[in-house]
Amino acid sequence: MPEPIDFYFDFSSPYSYVAAHRIEALAQRHIRAVSWRPILLGPAMQISGNRPLVDQAMKGEYATRDVPRLCRLYGIPFAWPTPFPVATLAAMRGFTWLNEQNPDQAIAFAKAVFHAYFADGRAIADAAVTTAVAGETGIDPDAFAAAITDPTIKARTKDAVDASIKRGVFGVPFVFVDEEPFWGVDRLPLVDEWLARGGW
Amino acid sequence: MPEPIDFYFDFSSPYSYVAAHRIEALAQRHIRAVSWRPILLGPAMQISGNRPLVDQAMKGEYATRDVPRLCRLYGIPFAWPTPFPVATLAAMRGFTWLNEQNPDQAIAFAKAVFHAYFADGRAIADAAVTTAVAGETGIDPDAFAAAITDPTIKARTKDAVDASIKRGVFGVPFVFVDEEPFWGVDRLPLVDEWLARGGW
Repeated sequence: MPEPIDFYFDFSSPYSYVAAHRIEALAQRHIRAVSWRPILLGPAMQISGNRPLVDQAMKGEYATRDVPRLCRLYGIPFAWPTPFPVATLAAMRGFTWLNEQNPDQAIAFAKAVFHAYFADGRAIADAAVTTAVAGETGIDPDAFAAAITDPTIKARTKDAVDASIKRGVFGVPFVFVDEEPFWGVDRLPLVDEWLARGGW
Repeated sequence: MPEPIDFYFDFSSPYSYVAAHRIEALAQRHIRAVSWRPILLGPAMQISGNRPLVDQAMKGEYATRDVPRLCRLYGIPFAWPTPFPVATLAAMRGFTWLNEQNPDQAIAFAKAVFHAYFADGRAIADAAVTTAVAGETGIDPDAFAAAITDPTIKARTKDAVDASIKRGVFGVPFVFVDEEPFWGVDRLPLVDEWLARGGW
């Protein structure tokens, strides 16, 4: 049985938002599952020395134009949120908790968070807002709110981030197909090719 | 008459090398010419705060794997040159001089320089080596060697770099289609789409 495709993302990453809209159809074409893996990009950026795109002269201006252009092409609802970027700890911890019990529900939650932030401009850095988003997907908000402050969940979230860095995830979106790494939403066509050919 | 596609690159950029192998076929599909525009990436990097890929932890390791993988897929001869990267002043000045007289010959020279560095590992930072490469493409080596030390050519080269920064070229390869900017070799499929649709 082939392994799932590992899809690393950060809830605050616009290119991850685009990838989240395309990764499942891509995987399905090759009869593969997707393992959704949110991370916190901050720690990886400290190691690689990268700064958030929007903080970089010239490159930030390009991204401001580029993301909406991609979303228009793919028919993905998008509006630049304010503030941007934000800390995504609540969403990541919530996902970690959900994923242990019900991965499909975790994925539905992840999509709802992405939509809340990048389509509706909601303040997902606010734990109360992220809890409300969880509630809207059918999750018990009280259980969610308790989980995201649970020390065990916090520790597992930290472990997940550390593991992603050990694996080489320096940016998002990042995809592994059978240990072969692909960075960036622009590489999804190459992921498609790798899956079709079984590598080269 | 539609404008040419503007293709910005640095002779020391591996992703530019890949793009150089694909840009003409892409343009031809849409009956467009390509305006080849070498730049020096150093000045733009100083402004944007970027560092060469290979100097970045994690990201550099990924690129070391990624470039050969791309080249294998596209059938482009490639071997990591040493040293890498290098200063490409001689090649850029040579191109500037050639382009004023014979753009087609300038393009042939550009392709020869790319091949010399990324396929044959030759020391293109050495003006004598770049002059030899020019000679191998049918250019008078003495005239070439004189041109690349000519103050007027030096000034025009500097102007070209300044103009590229003003235009927003923060990295290479960089393509403009009718003033619409596309950064990165991964965006060539999007360039293709933009040309096919006339934008969106």
